[in-house]
Amino acid sequence: MTTKAFRIGVVNASSRLDPERGQAIVDWAQRMYPAGEVELVMHPSLYEVHGHFGGDDATRAAALVDYANDPALDAIWFARGGYGSCRIAEAVLPQLNDHARTKRYLGYSDVGTLLAAFYKAGIGTVAHGPMASDGSRNDLTGLRAINWLRTGDQTLLEASLHEDSRPAVAFNLTILNELVGTAVEPDLRGHVIMLEEVSEALYRVDRMMFHLTGQASIRGCAGIRMGRVSDVTENDPDFGMTAEEIARYWCERAGIAYLGSADIGHDRDNKIVPFGPR
Amino acid sequence: MTTKAFRIGVVNASSRLDPERGQAIVDWAQRMYPAGEVELVMHPSLYEVHGHFGGDDATRAAALVDYANDPALDAIWFARGGYGSCRIAEAVLPQLNDHARTKRYLGYSDVGTLLAAFYKAGIGTVAHGPMASDGSRNDLTGLRAINWLRTGDQTLLEASLHEDSRPAVAFNLTILNELVGTAVEPDLRGHVIMLEEVSEALYRVDRMMFHLTGQASIRGCAGIRMGRVSDVTENDPDFGMTAEEIARYWCERAGIAYLGSADIGHDRDNKIVPFGPR
Repeated sequence: MTTKAFRIGVVNASSRLDPERGQAIVDWAQRMYPAGEVELVMHPSLYEVHGHFGGDDATRAAALVDYANDPALDAIWFARGGYGSCRIAEAVLPQLNDHARTKRYLGYSDVGTLLAAFYKAGIGTVAHGPMASDGSRNDLTGLRAINWLRTGDQTLLEASLHEDSRPAVAFNLTILNELVGTAVEPDLRGHVIMLEEVSEALYRVDRMMFHLTGQASIRGCAGIRMGRVSDVTENDPDFGMTAEEIARYWCERAGIAYLGSADIGHDRDNKIVPFGPR
Repeated sequence: MTTKAFRIGVVNASSRLDPERGQAIVDWAQRMYPAGEVELVMHPSLYEVHGHFGGDDATRAAALVDYANDPALDAIWFARGGYGSCRIAEAVLPQLNDHARTKRYLGYSDVGTLLAAFYKAGIGTVAHGPMASDGSRNDLTGLRAINWLRTGDQTLLEASLHEDSRPAVAFNLTILNELVGTAVEPDLRGHVIMLEEVSEALYRVDRMMFHLTGQASIRGCAGIRMGRVSDVTENDPDFGMTAEEIARYWCERAGIAYLGSADIGHDRDNKIVPFGPR
């Protein structure tokens, strides 16, 4: 008996993807699934380059629409982050068909802007979680991601989701910070918002928390959890507060419940957080 | 005949001020005004330190309130930028008295958050322009600043203001980006918004322009002018657009008029832009 392969389309919405990294993703999947039960389908435009980006905006948008709409693909895995999804999010949405509406989509960091836009528009099931480039660097990270894309399995999600039944989202702090007030901001009232950050100085984290918790739309959330804030850029002099203390401070000022830590971050242990009710 | 000295209170709302830099400000003013016709009055808490900041939030807020409310001081000059004003802006406002409401206030960069808050609340006359630390580094820069603080002289303002009678504001891009949607965002409908930036990579400038021009509140402005974007952090690979091209792109996407350049920036030529109608 042959089982139909689960076919995952890999697309890039952000910065350039190094072809060697792309090949590593392909090789990793073949090693994990030698019988071909999961197949990663790399979009032909994955290695395009346009200045900073993995192809110009039209190319990246077309690639995402192409694979999202493709009935022969079962799910979409974003290849990497960096920067670029905010440029294409609004253009992509009206082009999506009914096939796009049934798929799962997984990524984080810069891709958060697309997850937000899809969530707002009710397209598919989106989750914050490891990207294809992360998966190929660590087997457990990659298998957790693919497992969710295949089955939507609830058992391997970020741990607090098992104890808190409220709808949730997860974002890179910078990315959520830069999308509030724009056309792609979903209604996060009643949601637990998990945040993580990488490669930012703490004074910037503080400034972003001022901005984020100052939004009326965000003040209606169910609470904030702070994930890992890693590779922190040096603050000279020392900032004087930790990232968690910063989060607590601004939540308290804004009347937002601070709910504790979240098991997400720019690392191999970054857990999956599906957006919305579970 | 003796002329009453024009007394300018110097306060710090942001990062630590090096005492040597403070002494340089004092020395510079004494050199420029040997007869004492202008006197810089340095706040006693100017050199406080608290982690990243020039004193804790309560100290910095109290210093600003103290000098703003003081009938013996004629104007307020912010000492430096860095980061910190957003933490104190909302606490300062309700403490200001009628003396505070008649003064001129000058600063930029991080101080933009306070200028925004004061402008929104109708406190005094606020302007984007050189700070005391800038003035002490270059005579013409400092004299231009003090001249405006003394007289509100319109002749030395940013040049486009002479040809465009619409109300204007000027901000560091990051600072405006981080205050939109918060309680200190003034109503900028009908205003020309001038922007400048320093020490940011172009992908960040692009992301901030996505966010800023995506705000409904900003889309009602009269147009955007782009000042100097200096000391740009390296973008690897090259971003592929200049800062001006980025500004034009996002303005066009948002239906905001792009009005050209502005003679402002993190440099000695940074011109004065009083907020509001002239």
